[in-house]
Amino acid sequence: MKRPRRRNNHVAGQVSPLAPGRTPDLPPIDGVRLGALASGLRYRGRTDLMLAEFDPGTRVAGVLTKSLTAAAPIEWCREALSGGQARGLIVNSGNANAFTGSAGVGAVAKTVDAAAALIGCERDQIFVSSTGVIGEPLPQEKIVESLPGLRGRISADGWDEAARAIMTTDTFPKLAARSATIDGRSVKVNGIAKGSGMIAPDMATMLAYVVTDATLPAPLMQAMLKSSVDRSFNAITVDSDTSTSDTVLLFATGKVSVEPVPTEFSDRRLKGFRAALDAVCLDLAHQIVRDGEGASKFVSINVTGAASKRAARRIGFAIANSPLVKTAIAGGDPNWGRIVMAVGKAGEKADRDKLRIKIGQTLITEGGMVRPDYDEAPVADYMRGQDITFEVDVGVGRGRATVWTCDLTHGYIEINADYRS
Amino acid sequence: MKRPRRRNNHVAGQVSPLAPGRTPDLPPIDGVRLGALASGLRYRGRTDLMLAEFDPGTRVAGVLTKSLTAAAPIEWCREALSGGQARGLIVNSGNANAFTGSAGVGAVAKTVDAAAALIGCERDQIFVSSTGVIGEPLPQEKIVESLPGLRGRISADGWDEAARAIMTTDTFPKLAARSATIDGRSVKVNGIAKGSGMIAPDMATMLAYVVTDATLPAPLMQAMLKSSVDRSFNAITVDSDTSTSDTVLLFATGKVSVEPVPTEFSDRRLKGFRAALDAVCLDLAHQIVRDGEGASKFVSINVTGAASKRAARRIGFAIANSPLVKTAIAGGDPNWGRIVMAVGKAGEKADRDKLRIKIGQTLITEGGMVRPDYDEAPVADYMRGQDITFEVDVGVGRGRATVWTCDLTHGYIEINADYRS
Repeated sequence: MKRPRRRNNHVAGQVSPLAPGRTPDLPPIDGVRLGALASGLRYRGRTDLMLAEFDPGTRVAGVLTKSLTAAAPIEWCREALSGGQARGLIVNSGNANAFTGSAGVGAVAKTVDAAAALIGCERDQIFVSSTGVIGEPLPQEKIVESLPGLRGRISADGWDEAARAIMTTDTFPKLAARSATIDGRSVKVNGIAKGSGMIAPDMATMLAYVVTDATLPAPLMQAMLKSSVDRSFNAITVDSDTSTSDTVLLFATGKVSVEPVPTEFSDRRLKGFRAALDAVCLDLAHQIVRDGEGASKFVSINVTGAASKRAARRIGFAIANSPLVKTAIAGGDPNWGRIVMAVGKAGEKADRDKLRIKIGQTLITEGGMVRPDYDEAPVADYMRGQDITFEVDVGVGRGRATVWTCDLTHGYIEINADYRS
Repeated sequence: MKRPRRRNNHVAGQVSPLAPGRTPDLPPIDGVRLGALASGLRYRGRTDLMLAEFDPGTRVAGVLTKSLTAAAPIEWCREALSGGQARGLIVNSGNANAFTGSAGVGAVAKTVDAAAALIGCERDQIFVSSTGVIGEPLPQEKIVESLPGLRGRISADGWDEAARAIMTTDTFPKLAARSATIDGRSVKVNGIAKGSGMIAPDMATMLAYVVTDATLPAPLMQAMLKSSVDRSFNAITVDSDTSTSDTVLLFATGKVSVEPVPTEFSDRRLKGFRAALDAVCLDLAHQIVRDGEGASKFVSINVTGAASKRAARRIGFAIANSPLVKTAIAGGDPNWGRIVMAVGKAGEKADRDKLRIKIGQTLITEGGMVRPDYDEAPVADYMRGQDITFEVDVGVGRGRATVWTCDLTHGYIEINADYRS
């Protein structure tokens, strides 16, 4: 396969204007060590390979892309998850090992073999993710050759390093941490993620890894992770595109335990832990939106009054994914007419004549039309800000949902009209 | 309602690079006269109101937006279509009379009353459309005042004038004409349309009016129009947005008749007429794509091997609506990996390992991976052209469909980040 050389837009080096003020310092979590290095897979002058090694007894749960053209690593993770145990996680950036046929499957197998031998564990305790360009053979020998050296330098403090190594077009590393108590014992929840383009519901080109020191059985972890993902990673959209590699994995090293070990989602002792897991996932999901390709504004869309929660979410996404709405936001234009349009095309029940639209604190429409005293000037001022909230009540029921997105700007076109990194 | 003045991007005056070389001259059609004038509704220095008057006996059929927040004129047309007869068509640009509550319904009623009195016909023989900004009250008195003068200047040669009056962000007027024979008698089919942003399946911000001199019963016209619209206007997408005002109407003046009058879709004498109707609708639909906001390339996507025709179309639209695919096209990047991604997210059955992707004449993937001898250079050359074809076989069945779209460029952002015209 011959391919002309292209420039790598990622190196442009401009950090998103919506980036958080500071990168959080993640505390060590007992039972995991991690780190990264530059394996030379694709990028020059940056790390592209991360390894996390977990102590024996670590449990794992995961939510993977629903794409029907999923990448080879996804298929492997789906299989390995059934074992519920984890000792190693290997993530490379620069090459997604997606649509690489049997060679791609072979590349995963060789990486898993090497990592299992190195760590001394079962093959199905090794998890792998790849992110980057689709359709190019993964030079897995570079990964395999790098693993021993990488293993020699992992540490309990490698969170920032790991978060940086998995970036592709991300302009800042994404990290989040919370703590909670389970039955009076303190537990930690750390997470790292990468995002940028191809972000949409049902998982997107995003990878997220969350680690806790709690002791939890894998099926319960799966239920809690699914619930957290639904209200975080699956409630964001940058460009409506879903990738072939989306992955969220939750690891529990089991260093902190309570008796009896919780087994039910409804266990009251888990309330704080579930809130912490929700918060880490939501924090990472918001960071992904804030680093949406070309994003200049962070947008929250609250939909109420829908026939169901599912209907509310579909209406929210119809608004969030509308190029006309997104470009209006980019232009600071309080063009609520486009919100009406998007509600109309969502295909969910809505009462046009009860539709209430608020931008920020201003109620704009009522009774099927714009309010007679509506003054656009203060709303246009509000739209000049970086954090925009729309509230839309569609007047038919009690279903509600919130989705988050960013605007559609020239930056998105610039990044994507010539990207192959 | 107070609103700051905004600039009108439409006046920028640049014609789409994909515009047809010349504007076709439409022949007169016996039984219809039409024309336009500047009523001063919103735009300065251009026409914004068109009137077509049909001879008694004219039949009508229509396909209207499925938006659940449809505009007042749509509701009127839906009602009037049940009568099946038409004497007048009034279309204004600049104001969509959408989301205007009871005032909007009243504005339609007054326009219809005035036109019915002027022409001397039933109210339900008057059809109205409005296109432009959503949510502002329609100053229908300007329409009503203009109607007598406008009626005084309509003629059999007013096609070009009419096509120009209904434009909003369109950069060129859209006209198409074909002829056919029914049982040896020659009939004409003329059409005009407007398009631009908010173009998506299930109708978009597009208006199209087709007129023939054939004699046809309204139910048969409805069946033929539905079939033609499905493979033309409903097979195009500019930005996946569906408008509140989409309308396609077919008028038959009945000046040319054959005995017995055809009543069945399957009547073999209609083969040529149906082909002409298909061709006029497809020609207009393609012109709408060629005038997509900011469009620099016209893209045809042929999907084969799908589980059904519907599945093929959904896969086609997943590709056509993907911002990542559309920006890659804008950049002339043969990024077939994004096509794989879009196939995967369509939610329709596809066999990743049988997926065949062709760009132009070059077969790129086979057996779940890129062909070993694939050379990107000639495909990159091909992508520099203005007319791009993708062929995608998903390897599971015999369903096939073609959809058309344009690329996503800086021009789209420029037009939409500050549009209120």
